Amino acid sequence: MSAPAGKAFVRFGPNAIPLKQMFLISKLSFAFVNLKPVRPGHVLIATRRDVARFNDLTSEEVSDLLVQGQRVSKVIERVYKASSLTLAIQDGAAAGQTVPHVHLHVIPRHMGDFASNDDIYSKLEGADNRVATSHVDNEERTPRSAEDMAAEAELLRKEIGDWNEAEVV
Amino acid sequence: MSAPAGKAFVRFGPNAIPLKQMFLISKLSFAFVNLKPVRPGHVLIATRRDVARFNDLTSEEVSDLLVQGQRVSKVIERVYKASSLTLAIQDGAAAGQTVPHVHLHVIPRHMGDFASNDDIYSKLEGADNRVATSHVDNEERTPRSAEDMAAEAELLRKEIGDWNEAEVV
Repeated sequence: MSAPAGKAFVRFGPNAIPLKQMFLISKLSFAFVNLKPVRPGHVLIATRRDVARFNDLTSEEVSDLLVQGQRVSKVIERVYKASSLTLAIQDGAAAGQTVPHVHLHVIPRHMGDFASNDDIYSKLEGADNRVATSHVDNEERTPRSAEDMAAEAELLRKEIGDWNEAEVV
Repeated sequence: MSAPAGKAFVRFGPNAIPLKQMFLISKLSFAFVNLKPVRPGHVLIATRRDVARFNDLTSEEVSDLLVQGQRVSKVIERVYKASSLTLAIQDGAAAGQTVPHVHLHVIPRHMGDFASNDDIYSKLEGADNRVATSHVDNEERTPRSAEDMAAEAELLRKEIGDWNEAEVV
């Protein structure tokens, strides 16, 4: 396989997200599929800049993260035939953040998808951690294959419609 | 008491939020204190336009909601001496939304504030409902007095620093 244009990875805290797991990239944000989604279609949007806390972002970064997040949420709701969405930023360790790099969770929701609405959040607690931890929730979920992740990213990339790998520089 | 300039209330779904419970108002968003906060300092930021779903917002509304939300979150983290923040939009009934008017929850977090991080979300489920419902969480929490709410709003208004009642038209 030929090397992609620009860099092959984007930093997400201590992790490197390969381009083939990404489906949106803007000047200030990028979106990617999840190794251990709490529900099918649970994706993440992060800032390009590797910064831990929401309050460290510039207004431009805040706007872009959420405006791109809205583009993503429209596609996720449609593709996964959801009726609702959970949008959440776990901002800091005491709020359940495990990767110290600002990111928005977008999770498609359906009536009755969890016995209680709040069950999704116990799943979410370890959801953004790609590194093995002691989180029970994280440990309990089986990581997906690279092929599954690439296939989902490719689908979402087509739905979003303006993927530009050259942005990854 | 003399009537405030402009309207005395801002619509929040079926509810009317009195000015004295608000502490920030911009062209497109407003922030107000909570009748039944899940933690001290749990506040809400809503769009001025009474619209139910995040995906119905214009890009300008998304940006303003979150940029104002960041202003609020900085003040909340400082005033409530928090180390983290939970930022969440319950977007649609299947995601736990009870007031069909887009709003962001900002909740100050401290290590150990809940036995498990996800416990906050079971509290959150009924948190935005000012109307009596069958939600156990909502029913269990005792509403605060109008005086408490006004005092908190006044404190936060001073911290935010640019309250302009004339914006409420």
